[in-house]
Amino acid sequence: MATGKINVSVENIFPLIKKFLYSDHEIFLRELISNATDATLKLKHLTSIGEAKVEYGSPRIEVSIDKDKKQIKITDQGIGMTEDEVKKYINEVAFSGAEEFLDKYKDAGKDAGIIGHFGLGFYSAFMVADKVEIISKSFKDEPAVYWTCDGSPEFTLKKAKKEDRGTDIILHIAEDSTEFLEDSKIRELLTKYNKFMPIPIKFGMKTETLPKPEGAKEEDPAPTQEVDDIINNPNPAWTKKPADLKDEDYKSFYRELYPMQFEEPLFNIHLNVDYPFNLTGILYFPKLTNDLNIQKDRIQLYQNQVFVTDNVEGIVPEFLTMLRGVIDSPDIPLNVSRSYLQADGAVKKISSYITKKVADKLSSLFKNNREDFEQKWNDIKVVIEYGMLSEDKFFEKADKFALYPTVDGKFFTFEELQNNIKDNQTDKDDKLVVLYASDKEAQHSYIEAAKAKGFEVLLMDSPIISHLMQKLETSKENLSFARVDADHLDNLIKKEDSAISKLSDEEKDSLKAELEKVTTDKGYTIQLEAMDSAASPFIITEPEFMRRMKEMQQTGGGGGMFGMGNMPEMYNLIVNTNHELVGEILNTKTAKKRERLINQSLDLARLSKGLLKGEELTNFISRSYEMIK
Amino acid sequence: MATGKINVSVENIFPLIKKFLYSDHEIFLRELISNATDATLKLKHLTSIGEAKVEYGSPRIEVSIDKDKKQIKITDQGIGMTEDEVKKYINEVAFSGAEEFLDKYKDAGKDAGIIGHFGLGFYSAFMVADKVEIISKSFKDEPAVYWTCDGSPEFTLKKAKKEDRGTDIILHIAEDSTEFLEDSKIRELLTKYNKFMPIPIKFGMKTETLPKPEGAKEEDPAPTQEVDDIINNPNPAWTKKPADLKDEDYKSFYRELYPMQFEEPLFNIHLNVDYPFNLTGILYFPKLTNDLNIQKDRIQLYQNQVFVTDNVEGIVPEFLTMLRGVIDSPDIPLNVSRSYLQADGAVKKISSYITKKVADKLSSLFKNNREDFEQKWNDIKVVIEYGMLSEDKFFEKADKFALYPTVDGKFFTFEELQNNIKDNQTDKDDKLVVLYASDKEAQHSYIEAAKAKGFEVLLMDSPIISHLMQKLETSKENLSFARVDADHLDNLIKKEDSAISKLSDEEKDSLKAELEKVTTDKGYTIQLEAMDSAASPFIITEPEFMRRMKEMQQTGGGGGMFGMGNMPEMYNLIVNTNHELVGEILNTKTAKKRERLINQSLDLARLSKGLLKGEELTNFISRSYEMIK
Repeated sequence: MATGKINVSVENIFPLIKKFLYSDHEIFLRELISNATDATLKLKHLTSIGEAKVEYGSPRIEVSIDKDKKQIKITDQGIGMTEDEVKKYINEVAFSGAEEFLDKYKDAGKDAGIIGHFGLGFYSAFMVADKVEIISKSFKDEPAVYWTCDGSPEFTLKKAKKEDRGTDIILHIAEDSTEFLEDSKIRELLTKYNKFMPIPIKFGMKTETLPKPEGAKEEDPAPTQEVDDIINNPNPAWTKKPADLKDEDYKSFYRELYPMQFEEPLFNIHLNVDYPFNLTGILYFPKLTNDLNIQKDRIQLYQNQVFVTDNVEGIVPEFLTMLRGVIDSPDIPLNVSRSYLQADGAVKKISSYITKKVADKLSSLFKNNREDFEQKWNDIKVVIEYGMLSEDKFFEKADKFALYPTVDGKFFTFEELQNNIKDNQTDKDDKLVVLYASDKEAQHSYIEAAKAKGFEVLLMDSPIISHLMQKLETSKENLSFARVDADHLDNLIKKEDSAISKLSDEEKDSLKAELEKVTTDKGYTIQLEAMDSAASPFIITEPEFMRRMKEMQQTGGGGGMFGMGNMPEMYNLIVNTNHELVGEILNTKTAKKRERLINQSLDLARLSKGLLKGEELTNFISRSYEMIK
Repeated sequence: MATGKINVSVENIFPLIKKFLYSDHEIFLRELISNATDATLKLKHLTSIGEAKVEYGSPRIEVSIDKDKKQIKITDQGIGMTEDEVKKYINEVAFSGAEEFLDKYKDAGKDAGIIGHFGLGFYSAFMVADKVEIISKSFKDEPAVYWTCDGSPEFTLKKAKKEDRGTDIILHIAEDSTEFLEDSKIRELLTKYNKFMPIPIKFGMKTETLPKPEGAKEEDPAPTQEVDDIINNPNPAWTKKPADLKDEDYKSFYRELYPMQFEEPLFNIHLNVDYPFNLTGILYFPKLTNDLNIQKDRIQLYQNQVFVTDNVEGIVPEFLTMLRGVIDSPDIPLNVSRSYLQADGAVKKISSYITKKVADKLSSLFKNNREDFEQKWNDIKVVIEYGMLSEDKFFEKADKFALYPTVDGKFFTFEELQNNIKDNQTDKDDKLVVLYASDKEAQHSYIEAAKAKGFEVLLMDSPIISHLMQKLETSKENLSFARVDADHLDNLIKKEDSAISKLSDEEKDSLKAELEKVTTDKGYTIQLEAMDSAASPFIITEPEFMRRMKEMQQTGGGGGMFGMGNMPEMYNLIVNTNHELVGEILNTKTAKKRERLINQSLDLARLSKGLLKGEELTNFISRSYEMIK
């Protein structure tokens, strides 16, 4: 029996690090700038506790490109490295300098905001460079040091001439990576990953316009000057205290995050928690359309002000992925699978914290300025309704502030709605019937008929509304929703008293037979109803249950029965036995004239329900031109 | 000056390998089964060239779970390892055994189908296990060997008792990975990653029903037996020669790939190339709907029969990501960024090879069975039209077989269309005007008017059709498309001869003034036209250019002017001066009656164009009920 140590061969692991360390080669710049930021923050910490007797000053990081020499140079004014430190931190791969530093200055660690890990991050330089040079001068009184390596595991180390404190990293860009020698590419990467990092990053110069000197003439050009172009905002809004921020600050940060977005956000939620996990951030509610898919994935995830990803699936509950903004947390594990993320305890807590904060914010907006909340409802309802469907805890809270708009522009909470309609819209079985329309235009005549009876009609036009109604019907007692065109109103809300028909039973039988003769091949189920004589003579209705099941299947998710999407649509033809025209049909002696009356009435009813189309509509129109001539 | 070798510290790199090697921990099973497969294929190769003097037999791989002991065991009957080989391949991390093997047996390498790399792949076991054991017996006449390691870099190595050739890997599953002790989880992973690997994989037993013995009674139950449950199909269709496959084989492979898919594919394309890159596969055209987004990402990418991903973005041209099927190629670099993929020369060649094969297949389907191709057109047009828009090479080929259906169900190629309509639909400026409808129902009356003049009307209802028309108009000369409701037909296809109006110029002026009085606030531009007296009296049209720009902006991509989506819709009101009703309007003396005639005609014209809605429609309908009484 033998024991031994597994050997990691440098020659073999090195190409793997270069090739596999990150699937995205562009990450090298983020890693090197993170290192430079760490080196600077370390110095800041050491000077603040008096351990480094130097002036911290206003250090910054500088990135520059020499296209002729095919070089990228990254310079910092941070802590620097002595020869021993280079040997320790650079020559030993995967030796995490940051970890050791954090161990030593444990309590200060979190505040100092150290980002990365020395070691592997630095070696990502070899993903794009075939040679890397380091020139570093420590804040300690030791000579500067020069290190170079051509990507083989061999390095060279010697003394260097460098007076200023800090580190220069020079990358000799490889032939297959020359895209990184383009100004525009580097600017793009800096903007993507480092836009909010805590140390100013200079990349080239830009021209600034100065105020004109006093006494300058109208036609004199304003003077300009060349100034350093600082890529980043080292103090982004989310790192500040909510008390220090005004509404305008939040809005201007939104513009910083989404420069191409012209519409202002509706409101924001500042996240700030440090126990049991660390998380800061600002979420914005944008105006949303009814298309659920195109607007996802706009929330950006940062770790200590370094951009990580804009895919927050698994971290933020799905219904909130339609929001925008920033989340910054060192506590979110990143290099793990999404399924692992969803099972992780810390992530679950983060997710439910965010849900709670969003619900609380919505609740306070509702309470503090109801009118404003109502105006924004149409833009935010999709998120809220989706949340009510998918998260039970959110449902409980949202049930207090979720609004139900009517076709007349009034807004009720569910409780208000209930109180408002219970007298008029409770049926004989003690069930509250909520009437709604999904389209004010298309269902206009049906809405008018309901309003004529004093009923409230809600306007429910969200894409997932049928699922929400289903949920409300099952979670509240004695409640049902019915679309205004689902049946004759007296059937939708059944009361004790039955209406009196002008027709005798015999007349009804005869009428029904005549109607069936003409409409038999059109697939309508005929229903004779004694309605108000002022109501329409013919009405086409579509039963609630079937229609809603079909809709639910189309929008996916639970409910909706299998294969329902392929069922034909079913319509009923309701004929108002008390309408004058119906009496006329019954009394018309000539079959042809009676048939013409029935057909024209049926066409008008179909027109009202949006069912008269194509050739039938064309024929109806030319018949009508004939009639007005 | 000093030189030295960069040191990779095992203690530090080991946790990183465990944590970062793959973002998805479940990959461990794929890696271990790939190793087992390699070991078996290596033996096959060595026996086939006579270098291993043993019986190859029918080796297989067995996966089993011992839930009580918290173990997963993977057994193969392959080449096995001697003690020296364990030291070399296992104790040295990142020492690629497969590469060395391929080097040695260069020519045979590709055929032998070696998948993975020893070394790192094996260590992925530590992502889920806190202890791993190996028991291996080489095909060579050497004692078996036992190796174990608890995830620290320390290992133990000793002789073992094992008679059968091959390797057992035993994973002691860690506390945080117990999900992998569930039968259902392992079955899911085997089905996802190893469903088509070349060596049979056994996972447990299943019950098979046997035929009844002769003379058995009706009521006797059929006998059953327990047999090994083999997870995979070691010889999937794409690895066979097209000549050896029948249509039914392709269809049954489709069901194997998509067991939940009930609809049959329309046709398939067998890919098979070995120079300048290796690629095999089968693509299927499924029935497509007009929703472009939901049906992407169904193509599965394999490397040597190991499933890799179902995200083929960057490898397959975007317009083909709506297809389904399998692509298997060892030449696609996987651990690189998508942007790198798209710039990679080999990948570009693969992408254009696939495009060419698809175009060739479509072309041969078109030539060999035109009728069948026409029947399938509606289901495949989205892919073809999208391809014509996005890939110029595909456009050139597809221009010969892309079909243009008419509202009457005829199908033309562009050339046929041109020949068919050029006499009747070339205007006085020698421009060929192609008329089309986007909706047979909604544009019915306009289609009828065009057909009455002998014009062909195409049915162009794809979501990206306006972009394709734009492309056709710019790539072909003297061509323009116009929707049937874009203007009065005599204006859409202008001929030399001008129509004669029944009205004098004075009458026209007076008519126009009357019309404007009534319709002024409705925003229509009035256009008097001397048309056929049988044509409609009032027609509403919507100019082609503006409408198409708005549509193009809605479906994204090039074309469409910025902000166009927000422009109001613009309509013209065309009044047929030769229609009897128009004469009547002119001759009506009482203003009120004239106004009523104009309004009712306008309502009918709006109805025909789908513009009469909501309250206006309800009012129109009740007025009409009054009129028929």
